[in-house]
Formats: sequence, structure tokens, C-alpha cells
Amino acid sequence: MPEKNRSELEKAAQKPGEDALKLHPFYKGKIETMLKCSVRSFDDFAIWYSPGVAAPCKDISINKEKVFEHTNRGNSIAIVSDGTRVLGLGDIGPEAGLPVMEGKALLFKYLGGVDAVPIMLDTKDKDEIVRFCKVIAPTFGGINLEDIASPKCFDILSELQQTLPIPVWHDDQQGTALVVIAGMINAAKFVNKRFNTLKISLIGSGAANVALVRLLAKAGVDINNIVVVDSRGIINLNREDLKNNPVKWNIAQTTNKSQITGGIKESLQDVDACIALSKPGPGVIEGSWIKEMSDSPIVFACANPVPEIWPWDAKSAGAAIVATGRSDFPNQVNNSLGFPGLFRGALDVRALKLTDGMCLAAASEIASYAEKTGLSETHIVPTMDALELFAHEAAAVAMKAIEEGVAQIKLDKSEVYENALEVIKRSRNITRNQMDSGFIKPAP
Amino acid sequence: MPEKNRSELEKAAQKPGEDALKLHPFYKGKIETMLKCSVRSFDDFAIWYSPGVAAPCKDISINKEKVFEHTNRGNSIAIVSDGTRVLGLGDIGPEAGLPVMEGKALLFKYLGGVDAVPIMLDTKDKDEIVRFCKVIAPTFGGINLEDIASPKCFDILSELQQTLPIPVWHDDQQGTALVVIAGMINAAKFVNKRFNTLKISLIGSGAANVALVRLLAKAGVDINNIVVVDSRGIINLNREDLKNNPVKWNIAQTTNKSQITGGIKESLQDVDACIALSKPGPGVIEGSWIKEMSDSPIVFACANPVPEIWPWDAKSAGAAIVATGRSDFPNQVNNSLGFPGLFRGALDVRALKLTDGMCLAAASEIASYAEKTGLSETHIVPTMDALELFAHEAAAVAMKAIEEGVAQIKLDKSEVYENALEVIKRSRNITRNQMDSGFIKPAP
Repeated sequence: MPEKNRSELEKAAQKPGEDALKLHPFYKGKIETMLKCSVRSFDDFAIWYSPGVAAPCKDISINKEKVFEHTNRGNSIAIVSDGTRVLGLGDIGPEAGLPVMEGKALLFKYLGGVDAVPIMLDTKDKDEIVRFCKVIAPTFGGINLEDIASPKCFDILSELQQTLPIPVWHDDQQGTALVVIAGMINAAKFVNKRFNTLKISLIGSGAANVALVRLLAKAGVDINNIVVVDSRGIINLNREDLKNNPVKWNIAQTTNKSQITGGIKESLQDVDACIALSKPGPGVIEGSWIKEMSDSPIVFACANPVPEIWPWDAKSAGAAIVATGRSDFPNQVNNSLGFPGLFRGALDVRALKLTDGMCLAAASEIASYAEKTGLSETHIVPTMDALELFAHEAAAVAMKAIEEGVAQIKLDKSEVYENALEVIKRSRNITRNQMDSGFIKPAP
Repeated sequence: MPEKNRSELEKAAQKPGEDALKLHPFYKGKIETMLKCSVRSFDDFAIWYSPGVAAPCKDISINKEKVFEHTNRGNSIAIVSDGTRVLGLGDIGPEAGLPVMEGKALLFKYLGGVDAVPIMLDTKDKDEIVRFCKVIAPTFGGINLEDIASPKCFDILSELQQTLPIPVWHDDQQGTALVVIAGMINAAKFVNKRFNTLKISLIGSGAANVALVRLLAKAGVDINNIVVVDSRGIINLNREDLKNNPVKWNIAQTTNKSQITGGIKESLQDVDACIALSKPGPGVIEGSWIKEMSDSPIVFACANPVPEIWPWDAKSAGAAIVATGRSDFPNQVNNSLGFPGLFRGALDVRALKLTDGMCLAAASEIASYAEKTGLSETHIVPTMDALELFAHEAAAVAMKAIEEGVAQIKLDKSEVYENALEVIKRSRNITRNQMDSGFIKPAP
């Protein structure tokens, strides 16, 4: 089975890329600007533009908050990237990163009803990226940082979260982390282990795993039971090479209570779960190492395009649950389950921030949704086609924002849910309608 | 008639603003993001996003120009403003300027099929605005600067035009100028005067009139026959106050061959035409001064919301042709006749620059279009509902770009025209379809 699967897989794995190379030029991109107000006649332009538009402008100049009533700011976010860490491709620059950001904007709209504008930056300078985001902030209801290299991504996010009065997040940090946590909550449940006492090895120390350390701890996992492995081995206090890296040094000081040393192999000894967000496999994790994990091991091998270990190899080594980042295997740990609903909720209560609490509320809601629709070895997280998921998530995030005092609009949970559902349905129905009406041509 | 008109007018003039204050919050803005590619099933997300999207990314990383094939860059522009000179409202800041930029984006899409993204900047610093535009350039096919105060707008435009490989323009400079020139070509024709020998007084020395001096000269008007009046009077070489203002000092050195002095009154003596882009009237220009102009005087009184002189007062003082900036009077000199078609043409041949020649080609095409549809005292420029106008303009601009060697794609005039017409019709039809399908709700 593995051999057959591997060759089938390799062929199947190439298909989306082949299609993408044909279909991107066919459509010349994936998003466009559209009117959202009526044009009954050309006279309406006197309302939407000069001279009528001066009245809303004056109204906002007296009270800045009115911008959320008179414009689309409250539903629009910027997707900001410098193209320095795009997918698994590395630093490919602003032009080459644009297809990803347009794709992200597509997902934001289709799954969350959020208007997202991709902005690729022709600078790699940390301070300039921070300044850039501050300068554009009056235009947007939120900022989604994307595919910005580590470690500068940590400082950029932190500075913007502290200073801007709109939700800012970095999808490669909180976004990945929240979906992984959703999956881990259900995986633990499935193997009858308590989430809070899980022993976990995190393979890789990129943006996502750094965020995971913090968020797992906030979600209740004992940080003493977490170990993190970077390219030089398990992070511990004897690692002199980390003393000039504040982010990793902080991990050394807070995790790995037992101060174990070694590599991935040693990190897996007797742990309940492994979360690998490292480099493409196979062969990064060996089956024999999984055999040394505790009973009913949970293996999240999330590298793209090829997981750190093939799922069937992990299973035959005894893994009780395997998750990957791929849509063609069960249990896809997929950021798209998170960001559309999360921003939907944050925007709808006009949150001033996007807190860790809101991320965890989203994670918990994703986990609940999968549980409600039937937990199984191959279904620990929902799939993207779960329409209501995103509305539930929006409601959970909004309630948490209100609870934490960062929401500027107070709504009932059901109000957020119903509104989110309507907005998301509208996005999907418009796309369907554009296809049916021929405004979006059929793919050749 | 004047009295009645005035009271009617004042009431009518308030209506768009009243409607705007109701309808902007009803729609919560005027533009949104929409998918332009098909979603046959959720499997398509493997093409539009990870893993498939990596293939177009790699393709672009090898050859940057491929970004125009794989993304919407070639049809999208940024509308960049710092909100320092919004309409006649002055420096009202980035939030308060956003309704104008959204309105502009609406017009770009509806009239020209161009996807425009409003970006309001929370900085007024000239160098930072320049740097900002350079940093975002890889995302966009062009940049439309808007409502940026004078004189910094001149340096910003000039620096960006010299350094960026995409069309950059400032609508308050070239945009206004080209539509005024279109009107002036036809006004001269209507009163049987040669355009090239017109004596013209420009009232006001803001962005538009500064650009007009240059563009009128390039269009063939003898610059010796132009005088410019600023708030301190006619610009001439004895004006010591101008020596520290390079822009105005250049005007002093090139215009006003006869070195006349005085104010608006004196500037109008014996000239054929007056182009006022100064401050709201009435009373800025007096009827008695128009009587001192040469025979069949042409009066463009373009201040908003109230022209420098009421049209009926100008007419009763002997004006042969009167134009204003208002849609409720005949001969509206309206930027919206220019920018949508101009950018359509520039984008379709992927122009590296937006030259004065391209602006004048657009002006000439607008004039021709109005002439073809019947020149009259009340019809020297077309109205916005002239669908084909924008396609003709796009074709003329594209041909000029090719002729001047700034086009990266060579097309026939008819190809540009047909494509532009189709793209513009699609925009309008989609809006109509969204209204008919209930995705855009009827205005209350």
C-alpha cells in the first residue's frame, strides 16, 4: 500500500500545480473590486461622489468613528506581506508572493465574507514594515500579516498589536496555532487523554511553533511538559547558541522542565503528542521513534508539501491519530478553518485587538464543531465546506472579545452568528451567481 | 430667473449631501472585494491556494513580468491619498477622506472596468508618501494620487513618474487639466476661434491650473498668451513673493509675455477664455469683468460646490460658452470623463508611464466624441453615461503610449477599443445583475 500510495500521491500532488499554471492566466488573478451600492442612474454619482460625498466626509471629520458607518472600512482588512517566507518557497519577493495573497483574499471573502486587499511590500526592513502598517491603518478594519520571515515577524506583530486600535495578527503564528490546538483538543479526547496533562514535542521552531508554545500553555497544557526541537536539537538551558535569540531563549527558560537533550528522536521518547511544523519529509520523523512515544501516540506532521512522515508510516508505527497539512489526507490541519471566521467575529464587534483569548475561543469552537459532527480517527477537525463552522467561530470570537473588554460593539451571540451566516452565504451565492450568469467564465 | 434658480439651486444642491448621509450608512461603503475565478468545488482551493498556487509563485520568481499573467495586478491600481486636500474641504485627514476614495474606486470600476483600491495614509510627509508608493508598487498596475495638498503634490508626482515602471498620475493635476482642455478645444471650435491662438486667463494656481499651463502649451496654445492669477494677483516677474516657490516662479518665467499686472479683473481684459479653478463663488468673478473680455468669451468657472460666477450671470454678461464643475448645469467639466478611460488604455498596453502625450490624446478623444454627438452651446463635453466614450479614450491613449514607446504590449486600436468596451460593459452589467438578484439591496 505505501508504494502504490506514494506513486499515486506524487502524481496527484502535481495536479493542483499544473492546473494552477493554466487557470491563473485564464482568469488573470482571483479577486476584483465590485460595487456594493446601487446605481439607479448616473445621477446617483452625485451621491456616491462629488458633491454629495462631502457630507459623509464632514461627518467623519467631526467624529472619526463614523468612518465605520460611511465606508467599507469595518469589513475590510489588508493582507500585508514582504514575500520573505512564502509557503515553503522562502524569500521569493513581493511579485512572486502576490498569487498567495490573492488566494488568501479569495478565502477571506468566500469563507468569511471579509473584504481583503493584498499588499505586497518592496521592502524587507522590519521597522519600515511596522511603519507601513501604521500608515495604512486608517483605511482598514484589521491587518493580516502573512509570510513574513522569522524572527522579524515576532517583533512586527508585537509592536503593531501594542499600538494599533484594530485587530492585527500573523496567520503563520496564531492562525496555524489555533487550528493545531483545535485538532489537538479532539485528538486527546479521541485517545482518552486529558488535554491539560499532555506531554508534547514540537518539532520546528518557526513562527507557528513559537506561537504554539504560548497558546498551548494558555489553553491549559502544562508548559513544563512541552519540549521544542529546532534544527540543532532540543531547546534547553545549556544551548549557548540561543542566548542571543530572545524568542528561543524564552522557550528555553519556560519549556522542557526535565531539561532533556538530544534531537527529534529523543524529544519523542514517552510524549503523548508530536506537532511537527518543520521541513518537508518524508524521513524527518522515523517510524521507530513513534514507537517510543507513550501509548496511543498523536502525530501531527504538518510540513508542506510532504509531511515529515507519511501518514501510513506513522500509523503502522502505532500512531493513533495522524494529521497533516494536506487536503488529500484525513485530518487536514488547515489555517483556512481559522482566519475567515475569526476576522468575521472580530470585525463584527469592532474589536480593538485580536487577543490570544479570542484565538483560543476559535480553537475551542472548531473542536466542538468537529465533535458535534462526529469525532473519529479520520475526523478530528472539520473541513472547509462546513458553512456554519465559520459563523459559529465568529460568534465565539465576538463573545470572547466582549468578555475581555476589547469589543467596541456589544451584540448577542445569536446576532453575530446570524449576521455572519448571512454575510458568508451572500459571498458564496454571489460567486455562484457570477458563474451562472457568465460573468465568471467556466474553467477551460 | 436668477433668483428663482438660486433658491431652487440651493435646495437641489443640498439634496445629494442629504441622500449621501442616509445611503452611505445603509450600504456601509461603496466597494467590496469579489472573486473573479470559478469555484467548482472546495477542491479548487487546492488550485487557488496551497499547494497549487506555489506553481504560479515559482513562475513569477523566475520572471517577474509573469505577475501580470497570474494575478490581477494588470487591472488594479492604488488610489493613494493623505487626505490633505479633499474636495473643497481641505485637510480633513485619512479617515474622512475615505468616502471620496471609495467613490473614486466605484467610478474607476463602473466607468473603466479598473479595479481600484483606496489607501488613505496616516502621514503628511512628502518623502514618506513617495517611499510608500514605491514600497507598494509591486502590487499594482498603476497609482492614482488624489487629494494631496499643493505644492508637495508636484514633487511627489514627479519623483514617482521618474522612478516607477508603472503609470502614476495625480488626478487633480493631469485629470482635471485634460478634461478642461477637451472642453476648451470644443469651446474654441464653437465660437470659431483657433485653439492655438487663444488668449487665456487661468484663475487660481492650484494643482490643476499648474498642470494646465504645461498641458495647454503642449496642446498648442501659445504660452505667451496665458496669464495665471493667484490669491495675490497676476503672476509676473516682479512678484518677489514667488521667488521661493519654484513652481510659481517657473510660471512667472514662462507665461504672461506682456507682463501685465493686477488681479482677476485685469487678467480678463481682452482674453478669449477664462479657466477658473480657484475658490467657491459666487462673486469671485464679476459679470462686468466678463464684458471686458474679447468677443464671444469662454468662461469655465469650475469651483465646487458653487462656481466662481453663476452661469446665468456669466451668460447675461455676454459669455458665449459657460462650463462648470457641477452635474446640474450644462457643460460639466468632470474628471470622471478622463481617468477611467485613460487608465483602461494605459493598463491594457501595460504602459510604463502616463505621459502628457497620453493625457492630450485622451483630451482630444473626449473633444471628438462630443463633436461627433453634436456640438452646441450646452454640449461641449460628453456626459458620463456615454459608454463608448471611455473605450474610445482607452484606444486613443493606448495608441499614443505605443507611439511614444512606453507601451509594453502592442495592440491594434480596434483590439483595445473592443476589449475596453467589453470590460466596461461587464462592470455595469454585473452591478445591474447584483441589483436585480438582490445582492445589492434597493436604496430605501
